Amino acid sequence: MKNTLLKDIFASPSDYSEKEIEVSGWIRTIRASKNFGFIELNDGTFFNSIQIVFEENLSNFKEVAKYPISTSIIVKGRLVLTPGSKQPFELKAAEIVLEGLSLSSYPLQKKRHTFEYLRTIAHLRPRSNTFSAVFRVRSVAAHAIHSFFQDRRFVYTHTPIITGSDCEGAGEMFRVTTQDLYNIPKDENGKIDNSFDFFGKETNLTVSGQLEAETFALAFRNVYTFGPTFRAENSNTGRHAAEFWMVEPEISFADLNDDMDLAEDMIKYVIKYVMDKCPEEINFFNARIDKGLIERLNNVISSDFARVTYTEAVELLQKSDKKFEYPVFWGCDLQTEHERYITEEIYNKPVFLTDYPKEIKAFYMRVNDDNKTVAAMDMLVPGIGELIGGSQREERLDVLEARIEEMGLNKDDYWWYLDLRKFGGVHHAGFGLGFERAIMYLTGMTNIRDVVPFPRTVKNAEF
Amino acid sequence: MKNTLLKDIFASPSDYSEKEIEVSGWIRTIRASKNFGFIELNDGTFFNSIQIVFEENLSNFKEVAKYPISTSIIVKGRLVLTPGSKQPFELKAAEIVLEGLSLSSYPLQKKRHTFEYLRTIAHLRPRSNTFSAVFRVRSVAAHAIHSFFQDRRFVYTHTPIITGSDCEGAGEMFRVTTQDLYNIPKDENGKIDNSFDFFGKETNLTVSGQLEAETFALAFRNVYTFGPTFRAENSNTGRHAAEFWMVEPEISFADLNDDMDLAEDMIKYVIKYVMDKCPEEINFFNARIDKGLIERLNNVISSDFARVTYTEAVELLQKSDKKFEYPVFWGCDLQTEHERYITEEIYNKPVFLTDYPKEIKAFYMRVNDDNKTVAAMDMLVPGIGELIGGSQREERLDVLEARIEEMGLNKDDYWWYLDLRKFGGVHHAGFGLGFERAIMYLTGMTNIRDVVPFPRTVKNAEF
Repeated sequence: MKNTLLKDIFASPSDYSEKEIEVSGWIRTIRASKNFGFIELNDGTFFNSIQIVFEENLSNFKEVAKYPISTSIIVKGRLVLTPGSKQPFELKAAEIVLEGLSLSSYPLQKKRHTFEYLRTIAHLRPRSNTFSAVFRVRSVAAHAIHSFFQDRRFVYTHTPIITGSDCEGAGEMFRVTTQDLYNIPKDENGKIDNSFDFFGKETNLTVSGQLEAETFALAFRNVYTFGPTFRAENSNTGRHAAEFWMVEPEISFADLNDDMDLAEDMIKYVIKYVMDKCPEEINFFNARIDKGLIERLNNVISSDFARVTYTEAVELLQKSDKKFEYPVFWGCDLQTEHERYITEEIYNKPVFLTDYPKEIKAFYMRVNDDNKTVAAMDMLVPGIGELIGGSQREERLDVLEARIEEMGLNKDDYWWYLDLRKFGGVHHAGFGLGFERAIMYLTGMTNIRDVVPFPRTVKNAEF
Repeated sequence: MKNTLLKDIFASPSDYSEKEIEVSGWIRTIRASKNFGFIELNDGTFFNSIQIVFEENLSNFKEVAKYPISTSIIVKGRLVLTPGSKQPFELKAAEIVLEGLSLSSYPLQKKRHTFEYLRTIAHLRPRSNTFSAVFRVRSVAAHAIHSFFQDRRFVYTHTPIITGSDCEGAGEMFRVTTQDLYNIPKDENGKIDNSFDFFGKETNLTVSGQLEAETFALAFRNVYTFGPTFRAENSNTGRHAAEFWMVEPEISFADLNDDMDLAEDMIKYVIKYVMDKCPEEINFFNARIDKGLIERLNNVISSDFARVTYTEAVELLQKSDKKFEYPVFWGCDLQTEHERYITEEIYNKPVFLTDYPKEIKAFYMRVNDDNKTVAAMDMLVPGIGELIGGSQREERLDVLEARIEEMGLNKDDYWWYLDLRKFGGVHHAGFGLGFERAIMYLTGMTNIRDVVPFPRTVKNAEF
């Protein structure tokens, strides 16, 4: 008999009413009296569990009654609708077959565990309600990203993970090597000889696929990346991970306004998609993790995002009565406290800040006519601040070359990037969305370690 | 005026007939006489280009006539259907605005270039027909993978890239470190002290997400990974890359037959999806790259895949008249020549080979009752041989522990993997598809370097 999946039963219980079916899964809770018992069985395909009722007519009633939590079983029985009761239906067991017994030392007993503790059993935590919800939302949100861009015929581009170049010139990269660390070849001046390394040169893990994505945008017009990126930043906070996934679209024949339109459409699409496909999970988060979640997400979906220049924002912040920890002045890098004040207090909806001072932004952003600011944008959202950062890219060869020199970078390293401005360059733009940041926003989870299956952070690469 | 995209015009030309539209893109070819000229303009959203007709009434006719290939332009004009002629329609230009001039040194002139040469300009090669087709197919095939699994509610799981464990015990991994290679800390015995490294231990790039995916399969029942994996294998062939993408589903309450059903369904789905969404590209490959492509793909879609044990296959090979380079005997690792003979000559359709000798397979594969073979399967397809490898996983704790010891691995390294067999283990299975191998199969391209945007191979990490 083929297993019926809980996702299908919950989607349409009446289709299975009074039918003999077989389900399989893991025991979430079990309680039994002398003559009968109840099992909450979860099969992984749906957030909710199914209630199994078993009675003493079962040949193995006494064994079943003693099964520890997390034991896996296969149950044959009849589905009975139970309108008006807490469960919409239950399965009256005719047969329960043991698949795999769980030890009573199962570390995920039915009580409240701290998230810190659950990180130490990251291989088991997806069996809890919270992490079942987090990682299903993560999966569905990932598909929302792909569907959004593929529906618009953007070309998904797998930019390289191992790279010989440093996109932002920002440093803090992980070295990738096959050298024998006990015996690293050096040249006659004592310098490490990378010609013996696997790639014949120094290589690192990528911090961004943007520059390579631009090469594809100049061929396919509209492209996006979605893959892992890395920062060897020694920050032990709830917002930093050494390994995280980024979404980076690049669009040609497009300016900063087109870029903001795309970012706004994408965020609204992803939120709607997840709320539509994962109502049980979102309701759970709203009830247990973050009481304002649904209201906040609905506010994002229904708002027209504000668009304000950095210069205007600095004036608004300076005029406000709010005392900030960090002072605000034109040219300063805005802190999360400033960003949240703008989006939460001043506008109470998502805000694009645009046209930042060029000194605090990357070399590839397009210089505005004032020669002081660049066509950059950050999307700020209530609750966390910056969610997306993007810009129109500098398409003018001479300006770009001057910026590279100004920033102390080596022009030769960017020969292929400069080529894009020589052979039919076009105005183009793009942005980056930190995928974990988005999942935190969608779930109300506040620590990045709790939205990554197996997080990599300072001094931690377990599993 | 908003640009109209070529994908939309080609989808329904009559919607635009006799309308004034604006398109933008890059000049693929241009030829002009004294009074008029033709431009093939490609905007990246579609495989085909649009024909622009321009005449001397254009104010900048003389400049336009001299634009080098790859110059980017914006064209306003009227779309005219031209039934019966080579082009289904053309755009009669009323205005052509220069966006970005291309230098005449543009290295991708309209002539046949070798694939080897095009690899040296990987940042420009997607502007050629072949690579435009390859990378659009790659994108669409990636979405096919996601759609296939998401439709079935599999949970997409981002398994870690940086890992402290070595899944297969196969070695040949890339080391990831932030140590100063000039001054690596050592302990009093001269051993490298990894406690000073970023993660406080030795870390490498993953070769497979399978073991971590299994932890999620034991919570969500059905999961899949799709991400980059790495092998530091010193093989300079057309089939090996150091960085490649893998698809790895894991299914619970499933045996080897379920695993083969899933693999067969997935491959057929992906091929159908790509043929349906990319007919221009597939026709191009069939005409220019591999004349038998469409026939071969159709054969896969319409066949019921054969299922044959390794033992039967060895007998069939031994009985055949074919002279092989490598001898065939029970216990040998089958070579590509054997695999291709089986699938091309004996069956002329895809074949699953099952139940391999345990000595030549990994520790986690389920040992069969004969205690000589394991419940493994390889999917062989005409044209290339092995496309997918999978197995039922060993769910019995004692057998698994014995296998780990037998293979000389350290049990302690697998504590969390063994936990899965202690706390409600279930029979489960999974497989791995090398995504590049699949793209080669879908396109007829024969070198892995030509299906990866920026390939990483021995001594090569350019761009």
